[in-house]
Amino acid sequence: MSEHTLDWLEQVHWDAQGLVPAIAQEHASGDVLMMAWMNREALAETARLGRAVYYSRSRQRLWRKGEESGHVQQVHEIRLDCDQDVVLLKVTQLGHEPGIACHTGRHSCFFQKLEGTPDHAQWRSVEPVLKDPESIYK
Amino acid sequence: MSEHTLDWLEQVHWDAQGLVPAIAQEHASGDVLMMAWMNREALAETARLGRAVYYSRSRQRLWRKGEESGHVQQVHEIRLDCDQDVVLLKVTQLGHEPGIACHTGRHSCFFQKLEGTPDHAQWRSVEPVLKDPESIYK
Repeated sequence: MSEHTLDWLEQVHWDAQGLVPAIAQEHASGDVLMMAWMNREALAETARLGRAVYYSRSRQRLWRKGEESGHVQQVHEIRLDCDQDVVLLKVTQLGHEPGIACHTGRHSCFFQKLEGTPDHAQWRSVEPVLKDPESIYK
Repeated sequence: MSEHTLDWLEQVHWDAQGLVPAIAQEHASGDVLMMAWMNREALAETARLGRAVYYSRSRQRLWRKGEESGHVQQVHEIRLDCDQDVVLLKVTQLGHEPGIACHTGRHSCFFQKLEGTPDHAQWRSVEPVLKDPESIYK
């Protein structure tokens, strides 16, 4: 790889762990599907493959989204924010219709909504499970 | 405050610094406007006021979005993800039409798009400045 090749990766402000948050937004609907983390390798591979690749902090390795579930994210656009420390992906969530981004079998990971008054609030699941997770991860 | 009051705040998985990422999505358009950070106090105040309050890591204090710019975010919904460690706000970006979330005077902070081939890619600004930042921050 030439020096020039790495410029765009170096312009990202990686945190002390070498990571940045990456938000996946569904291209067609605008729905925010999930947020995960990327290291340099994950972002480089995402750009190269046109498929979302994250870095799993718990497993400490690259996480090729869909590698177990088949719920691959096709990447249409990669954006970077003003501080150069957050990535936004515009994706199509493949493998199911409607798309399932969440390991719980839901469309989006953001399925818990704060309800009630601030003094007596609670998180409530407001999105249906589209597919039993046990049948997603064999 | 009663013990019950804090349940929903305690259910959030705060990181080692006591923070979680918070994504602001425009309610009407679905546009992802920005990502910032929240501590317990910021999230509690966001819920109480119905206005986005973040925690500024650089200034190490609460950041009431719009306190200087007037570009307040009215909060319609607060969501939490499956791992309980990322917050999503559905907001209306007030103070300008169309809304300006970014300190650069742009609608969204995600105005830099990766263009070109992965081997010769670059970040390019693809969104217009709606208002001169110098006139936003007097």
